[in-house]
Amino acid sequence: MPGSSFGNALRLTTFGESHGPAMGAVIDGMPAGLAVDVGRLAAELERRRPGRLDACTSRDEADDAEILSGVFEGRTLGTPIAVIVRNRDQRPADYDSMIHQFRPGHADETTLLKHGFRDHRGGGRASGRETVARVIGGYFAGLLLPGVEVVAQIDTLGPFRSSREGELGIYGLRGCDSIKVAAYLETLKDSADSIGAELSCRIQNPPAGLGEPVFDKLKSDFGRALLSIGAVTAYGYGLGAGFASASGKDVTAERGNFGGIEGGISNGQSIHLQCTVRAPSTVGDKAKQGRHDPCIAPRVIPVIEAMVKLVLADHLLRQRALASFQGAP
Amino acid sequence: MPGSSFGNALRLTTFGESHGPAMGAVIDGMPAGLAVDVGRLAAELERRRPGRLDACTSRDEADDAEILSGVFEGRTLGTPIAVIVRNRDQRPADYDSMIHQFRPGHADETTLLKHGFRDHRGGGRASGRETVARVIGGYFAGLLLPGVEVVAQIDTLGPFRSSREGELGIYGLRGCDSIKVAAYLETLKDSADSIGAELSCRIQNPPAGLGEPVFDKLKSDFGRALLSIGAVTAYGYGLGAGFASASGKDVTAERGNFGGIEGGISNGQSIHLQCTVRAPSTVGDKAKQGRHDPCIAPRVIPVIEAMVKLVLADHLLRQRALASFQGAP
Amino acid sequence: MPGSSFGNALRLTTFGESHGPAMGAVIDGMPAGLAVDVGRLAAELERRRPGRLDACTSRDEADDAEILSGVFEGRTLGTPIAVIVRNRDQRPADYDSMIHQFRPGHADETTLLKHGFRDHRGGGRASGRETVARVIGGYFAGLLLPGVEVVAQIDTLGPFRSSREGELGIYGLRGCDSIKVAAYLETLKDSADSIGAELSCRIQNPPAGLGEPVFDKLKSDFGRALLSIGAVTAYGYGLGAGFASASGKDVTAERGNFGGIEGGISNGQSIHLQCTVRAPSTVGDKAKQGRHDPCIAPRVIPVIEAMVKLVLADHLLRQRALASFQGAP
Amino acid sequence: MPGSSFGNALRLTTFGESHGPAMGAVIDGMPAGLAVDVGRLAAELERRRPGRLDACTSRDEADDAEILSGVFEGRTLGTPIAVIVRNRDQRPADYDSMIHQFRPGHADETTLLKHGFRDHRGGGRASGRETVARVIGGYFAGLLLPGVEVVAQIDTLGPFRSSREGELGIYGLRGCDSIKVAAYLETLKDSADSIGAELSCRIQNPPAGLGEPVFDKLKSDFGRALLSIGAVTAYGYGLGAGFASASGKDVTAERGNFGGIEGGISNGQSIHLQCTVRAPSTVGDKAKQGRHDPCIAPRVIPVIEAMVKLVLADHLLRQRALASFQGAP
Repeated sequence: MPGSSFGNALRLTTFGESHGPAMGAVIDGMPAGLAVDVGRLAAELERRRPGRLDACTSRDEADDAEILSGVFEGRTLGTPIAVIVRNRDQRPADYDSMIHQFRPGHADETTLLKHGFRDHRGGGRASGRETVARVIGGYFAGLLLPGVEVVAQIDTLGPFRSSREGELGIYGLRGCDSIKVAAYLETLKDSADSIGAELSCRIQNPPAGLGEPVFDKLKSDFGRALLSIGAVTAYGYGLGAGFASASGKDVTAERGNFGGIEGGISNGQSIHLQCTVRAPSTVGDKAKQGRHDPCIAPRVIPVIEAMVKLVLADHLLRQRALASFQGAP
Repeated sequence: MPGSSFGNALRLTTFGESHGPAMGAVIDGMPAGLAVDVGRLAAELERRRPGRLDACTSRDEADDAEILSGVFEGRTLGTPIAVIVRNRDQRPADYDSMIHQFRPGHADETTLLKHGFRDHRGGGRASGRETVARVIGGYFAGLLLPGVEVVAQIDTLGPFRSSREGELGIYGLRGCDSIKVAAYLETLKDSADSIGAELSCRIQNPPAGLGEPVFDKLKSDFGRALLSIGAVTAYGYGLGAGFASASGKDVTAERGNFGGIEGGISNGQSIHLQCTVRAPSTVGDKAKQGRHDPCIAPRVIPVIEAMVKLVLADHLLRQRALASFQGAP
Repeated sequence: MPGSSFGNALRLTTFGESHGPAMGAVIDGMPAGLAVDVGRLAAELERRRPGRLDACTSRDEADDAEILSGVFEGRTLGTPIAVIVRNRDQRPADYDSMIHQFRPGHADETTLLKHGFRDHRGGGRASGRETVARVIGGYFAGLLLPGVEVVAQIDTLGPFRSSREGELGIYGLRGCDSIKVAAYLETLKDSADSIGAELSCRIQNPPAGLGEPVFDKLKSDFGRALLSIGAVTAYGYGLGAGFASASGKDVTAERGNFGGIEGGISNGQSIHLQCTVRAPSTVGDKAKQGRHDPCIAPRVIPVIEAMVKLVLADHLLRQRALASFQGAP
Repeated sequence: MPGSSFGNALRLTTFGESHGPAMGAVIDGMPAGLAVDVGRLAAELERRRPGRLDACTSRDEADDAEILSGVFEGRTLGTPIAVIVRNRDQRPADYDSMIHQFRPGHADETTLLKHGFRDHRGGGRASGRETVARVIGGYFAGLLLPGVEVVAQIDTLGPFRSSREGELGIYGLRGCDSIKVAAYLETLKDSADSIGAELSCRIQNPPAGLGEPVFDKLKSDFGRALLSIGAVTAYGYGLGAGFASASGKDVTAERGNFGGIEGGISNGQSIHLQCTVRAPSTVGDKAKQGRHDPCIAPRVIPVIEAMVKLVLADHLLRQRALASFQGAP
């Protein structure tokens, strides 16, 4: 009933407030014997770090992951894996003025409505900092997915549009000039404003047969996973919202329109997901007081990939159990 | 781990294949003593019936609900409520040709990929018929939501657009001429084609404080609920995909942009959700052999409302448990 | 949160009140393609039937199982399997006097405490009739356990003690004279009294590696399973309560003392479980009005076997998922 | 599907191997605003400490709890509470000889059977050290149970029997001479042997109406909770195993025989539970190499109380949700 766990066969439980001592993740259900590469885990966390991008928040979070359990001599033990990241550089004074300020679109007021009590120093669990734990979970989920490639990118950000071809730039846009993007974000920040974006995620070589109708379809579990990220406001797969105006004859002419998922089950082809993130709520004077991103999209990329991997690994374990009985008498 | 149950505190479990003996729903977790109106339940099922709309599938499903448990002398017992609806008029011969035909976008092939075995007579669990059980579940969920109004409608269907004002027509469009809509659907059916649509759902007077961050946010549970409906391909709340191009200053200027959900928790204001349904996959010669809808949207309306009520009732029970401790020492 | 479902990977959901229209079971998570033998299912239900034993309750329940979903052409579809058994011969008049009578040890009063409303006609969900659904679930769980033998028996009943050797008699005692047991039960019934019993269950050829520490140990899941049966008041495995007075040197001298479970995980050896059932609460004048068993033990045997199979099948699916990754890089 | 979480509405997730960096607990689902007393938490952990009793294991575990999340200014936030306890004094060299030694009754061999890989340095998750996290969970569960008193004691230990009256001694026996108990345990330790025990737990002033039939009955959830403790091999409630030979007339003569639970639901009277713990497996030469308890019972007392509180608090939240609708139209 509580909401801090995700997944069935592979279950991520997260904890930590942005201004508390530490963020953490517990990953339960991992098979034993899988090789853990702490350098790769650190690299994933580095991709999520705010300080990485000039125009983004300058909080210098070190994000050193400490593995507390579940790994022995570089391999998973089959026991729950717990990893924590200490919160540093908290500067609570920055947030003193927020005690009675409720940011629209933010959890400030609704947390109080819900619990009658809250940590006024910041977003608490609603902070983007919470996604550290998701990235940790996604790293371990990825150990179950060798050969599966999960790559998210920004499709649109303000005036920028990813081209079909081209390298992924540091801001996660394909074929766009990073210097121009940086300048755009800098201008936004200077004007204490912010902007939304569209992102997509492509999964190459996914296992076929994943998804448990009728409620745990792969498309709906991906949706739940991405929509559980604070800033995500819309989601689609395949043609997504584009299906609204497409005729059945057009749609069925090409299987790729279904984005690798038919009847809620993966068909083995590439899976294509999209989502929208909204502009951060902290604007105007408040944006100048704290340290805030003018656009969340670049930091969300590794979080999307992590959530997608968690869904895939969970469903892979579920399907493996069923498949082990295929051909039984 | 299996996928036929939905909800935590209020849990709907469904069963039934479209060409098997019966469809069914088990609703567990209902409080006792709530008045059950079988006439109202029948009316909800009637709204979902295909035969109701001229241009839609002409299968004459009687959909008489039989309550097998959980209700005594017109009131809920607090025990699991089981309701079944027999499948009639199955005409399996219609489907004999489908044994080796896999409809694109449909579960035909992926079910075989997943299970190595399937019922070739029809969609099985992937059939729209499965939604009968959801409507039953939604009726009972609604008993926990007196005063909460959940109304879905079609926003766009082919060339038609709901106006802001006006009555909801029989096709679920607001302020559109039903005769023209019927004619459009008839033409589609004659040409063995089909079309997608956009729908929205407005919840008036929702309880505040619903939603369990970080993974069971209200926005993500609504998303999962709607995306678990076979035809739904995209989902959004508040401005939805429109958030992509909106600036933070514009977005935060009006709280209503967030569609009644902030930080994943309801704020007590009206909640606004949107989704896209794709065109049915059965087109061309196959559409002429069986009996199929050219557009699924009108039938999906009560299903959307049912899923929304299930999410609300589930989260209301969860929040009630927490709220009962507010003010504790 | 509600309590009518059992199991994780293989999940049984049951419904039905003893005096309502039907009892039912939904089994979700079954792999596809397994052969279903309806004759064998009927035989399992027959073993549980009260009318079978002279001295036991004479309610003539036909217990014809109707499969509503999940089976096609004699094989499982991988979709939820729903089975119902209609309640016949309900004679509610027998129970009119019970409206204000609360039987000690029974759910009569606590159901009212819990729900503020109850079906006064009988035990509702607390009736032994509820176990019909468990036997159905156990039959399907058994399909995942070819070669595994699950046999329960009565160890003690009143003055009777099963011998080590000998056939299982119709009352479930090994090497006891059925005529003498019948006479004993008849005498009890005549005096409107009832008696408890001890039972045990032996699992031959269980899979090794089942059990998920630290909370879903095999020993604790068996315990929960058996203790969820209405009449069961105590449970043990291996030496069970006999461990209290045994020294470590004695205990570890023979691995068999641990009953096939070490560290909460099956070691592949035979598993040995025990439980106690209490005397039925309906005694004195009330026992003469209705039709009641003087000892529940004979009818509980197939229920114990069913619950044990459900636990084994659930844990087998869970372990299969993990094992599929053994040897991965 | 994984086994490291316990509870539905209040969910404890634990992690940590005995020879890894830390043990930890995450408690999710706690209402907000409850006062946290870190001194009381420390006192609970102290009761579980091995070093406390002369005759018990002399590992000097400091067990300083660090709260990482979920508590702010001395009150719960309604967010997941994470607490860790570092493992000190690990002396892995002591255990080097254990690489190829499988202790009977222990998880050594079955962990390898299950996972194909294990941490040979000690019990890993099967170690008694794992119970630190349970005691932490129990402390927080207790915050939801003001006025409810949960007291466990040893009923029998070797030649000792608790008397009905008298104080609880330091070994958890009532009315026994602690010096004599210490001498007995010392003798056992000197002979490298160990012994089992019987314990009981009494709950005064429990809330009525707790328990969710038919599978989550209070009696079966208590059973699962206690049996999930490594050393527990048998469990009963009320008369427990004594029900086997009791007649219905005798049993129903006094409501207290049912131990406060009727029909699987608490009736508001005192609840009475019993369980058996087996002798520790480490005996003979191995017992002399490491540092081991000759009897686990004294250390299990706070663990039993913790598990009982977790079950009560979980069911209280579940019942509160239902009860909030009593009297609804």
